[in-house]
Amino acid sequence: MTVVAAAANAHSHAFHRVLRGRTHGEGGSFWTWRDFMYRAAATLDPDLYRDLAEAVFGEMLIAGYTAVGEFHYVHHRPDGTPYTDPNAMGAALAAAAESVGIRLTLLDTCYLASAPGAALLPEQARFGDGTSAAWLDRWHALAPLASDLVTIGAAVHSVRAVSPEGIGEIIMGLPSDVPLHIHLSEQPAENAQSLATFGRTPTGVLAEAGALSSRLSVVHATHLVDDDIATLGSAGVTAVICPTTEADLGDGVGPARALADAGAVIAIGSDQHVVIDPFLEVRGLEAGERLRSLARGRFTPAELEAARTDGGFRSLGVADHARDTITLDAASVRTAGAAPDQLAYAATAADVREVAVRGVVVARDGLLADGRDPARMLRAAIAKIDARLEESG
Amino acid sequence: MTVVAAAANAHSHAFHRVLRGRTHGEGGSFWTWRDFMYRAAATLDPDLYRDLAEAVFGEMLIAGYTAVGEFHYVHHRPDGTPYTDPNAMGAALAAAAESVGIRLTLLDTCYLASAPGAALLPEQARFGDGTSAAWLDRWHALAPLASDLVTIGAAVHSVRAVSPEGIGEIIMGLPSDVPLHIHLSEQPAENAQSLATFGRTPTGVLAEAGALSSRLSVVHATHLVDDDIATLGSAGVTAVICPTTEADLGDGVGPARALADAGAVIAIGSDQHVVIDPFLEVRGLEAGERLRSLARGRFTPAELEAARTDGGFRSLGVADHARDTITLDAASVRTAGAAPDQLAYAATAADVREVAVRGVVVARDGLLADGRDPARMLRAAIAKIDARLEESG
Repeated sequence: MTVVAAAANAHSHAFHRVLRGRTHGEGGSFWTWRDFMYRAAATLDPDLYRDLAEAVFGEMLIAGYTAVGEFHYVHHRPDGTPYTDPNAMGAALAAAAESVGIRLTLLDTCYLASAPGAALLPEQARFGDGTSAAWLDRWHALAPLASDLVTIGAAVHSVRAVSPEGIGEIIMGLPSDVPLHIHLSEQPAENAQSLATFGRTPTGVLAEAGALSSRLSVVHATHLVDDDIATLGSAGVTAVICPTTEADLGDGVGPARALADAGAVIAIGSDQHVVIDPFLEVRGLEAGERLRSLARGRFTPAELEAARTDGGFRSLGVADHARDTITLDAASVRTAGAAPDQLAYAATAADVREVAVRGVVVARDGLLADGRDPARMLRAAIAKIDARLEESG
Repeated sequence: MTVVAAAANAHSHAFHRVLRGRTHGEGGSFWTWRDFMYRAAATLDPDLYRDLAEAVFGEMLIAGYTAVGEFHYVHHRPDGTPYTDPNAMGAALAAAAESVGIRLTLLDTCYLASAPGAALLPEQARFGDGTSAAWLDRWHALAPLASDLVTIGAAVHSVRAVSPEGIGEIIMGLPSDVPLHIHLSEQPAENAQSLATFGRTPTGVLAEAGALSSRLSVVHATHLVDDDIATLGSAGVTAVICPTTEADLGDGVGPARALADAGAVIAIGSDQHVVIDPFLEVRGLEAGERLRSLARGRFTPAELEAARTDGGFRSLGVADHARDTITLDAASVRTAGAAPDQLAYAATAADVREVAVRGVVVARDGLLADGRDPARMLRAAIAKIDARLEESG
């Protein structure tokens, strides 16, 4: 057994877990995926959102992630009207995290438009708050959810979903130390749209809005141009790379090495949860770099370790993670023979024997410390979603 | 639990397993890897080769591979002189397969030159037989190793290692139904060298030598030009893609979809055993295609299933695999929610509960049917190699 630092999952949409292994048939295009994603979102209410998040956060915890950044935009009822508590859905996520014992940074997300200048689509109605100001009002009401495990962060969905002026208002309205995340240049179409509408790349829009600083995390950052890389790097942002998702969605391989060389911090996220496994995620990061460059050794073992751990905790505003640990089986069929500093190139989440938060064991041998089984929790939550999908046709 | 077809591992160098998690430090270049690979090869004798292969074949079996194509070139003593039985090393592999109960196609490999017209390097001396004719003589003496589990196949290392004339002699000297494998265009340098020396791509060299037919498997096929794809496809070869190895070595992503469209059969191989997991291998195949094309759904679930199973068995000359099965946990933390025909997008080898060959259970819950633990076998074999590496400095 070898004790290593716990991992931080800097980008999650918990409800996407229900898509795993379900969107590859019948063509399996991006649109198959997107259609199912919206249908799944439509089934959620605070109780089911909590049940599903509890299960998914449980899967993360037994895999060795002790912190998750939940990029949360399923705010309101399906028709867009608020719940009695306008933060009922965020509270459901906080309750889920407290229940399983994972650290949550609640990245409450401002999502106002389906494209620059275009209203939200009907299936996006529940994501919207109307204006940046209204979103900021709701955001300020989240403070009571903060706890030893829960940090309140913020997010802008993308430069597609919030105008440059709206982003500027958010920067002015948020305390300067709050973790702020944004999806950035995930697909080439976003760049083209941004250039056509704003005359700037998405990175340029963020720079102009005053959004670039070391508290900002840019998620994906796949399709950057050279200026973008220097701009992001010199601002000291965190780039949250989501290798298994970016492969699944055919996004492409982003310039992670170049971003790191320019000064950005690298973190990882499991995003849509094709896989929940920090070791497969960092191997995907390095594999993408090797396939892009046709060379080995793009990140050193220590750099990959930092991406799996410190980079993510920094992105999520979690400072006290020194005693968050994973006890790994270093003599399993997968890890036998690996050098101690290169275990991450051999292990999978199946090699995680114990996970501790602040030195307290929270998971052991695939179960939560209280004996609950995330596999069982997942089956129950997904069955409820399936029943609602069935009802809705 | 869900029963699915067992997987076939169409390309293996068993002894490379000792490299896992050991070649990424200190720069981690291709040369780091290659140097360690040759040093590990130098430690092997028939007994240790059998012990290591037994452990690695055991790891394959519990992961759901019921057949392996061992691309075997560690033939002679380190200085190149034959063992008393010139096929002692091949016999060690056959004994290893019989011991654990995996099907082995022994792809005894002709490896004569370090580059076109250049002698083998000192560290390659044990791979060589001097001439194609001498290799053929030794190959014909392998027949007694054939059994219910062991099929005798053949391989040419590459167009770098055997001349076009030598390949022609091998084609003439081998029975026409013997599975024949070759490394093809793994890296751009091989193409450049082939064009410079022979005026043809490696595929062109094979075509000219009369090597192209449906009994041929080309391994990697990463750097093909358009004519190559049509040529290989119309010959009905099998393309053995090794996604986790090709990522680890920075080979690049080959044109698997285009090869399939042109008429080639697709199979998978774990090659250097960065990972021994047929599900991660087929996901790597599809991920590479998606990253190359920036589109989802490049292979259908049924096509990936065929690559994991039928394509590999065909490549290895194994026909009677109908009752080779894997019993998968379809309700684990990884697989919960996945559609039955899309389990391969969610499962890992850790979800394999039972493996059967011809209907007889040979592995269960990570152990061989007789109770042996491949993890323990790996640790013991790798410790012996480490001791010899230590001795040799």
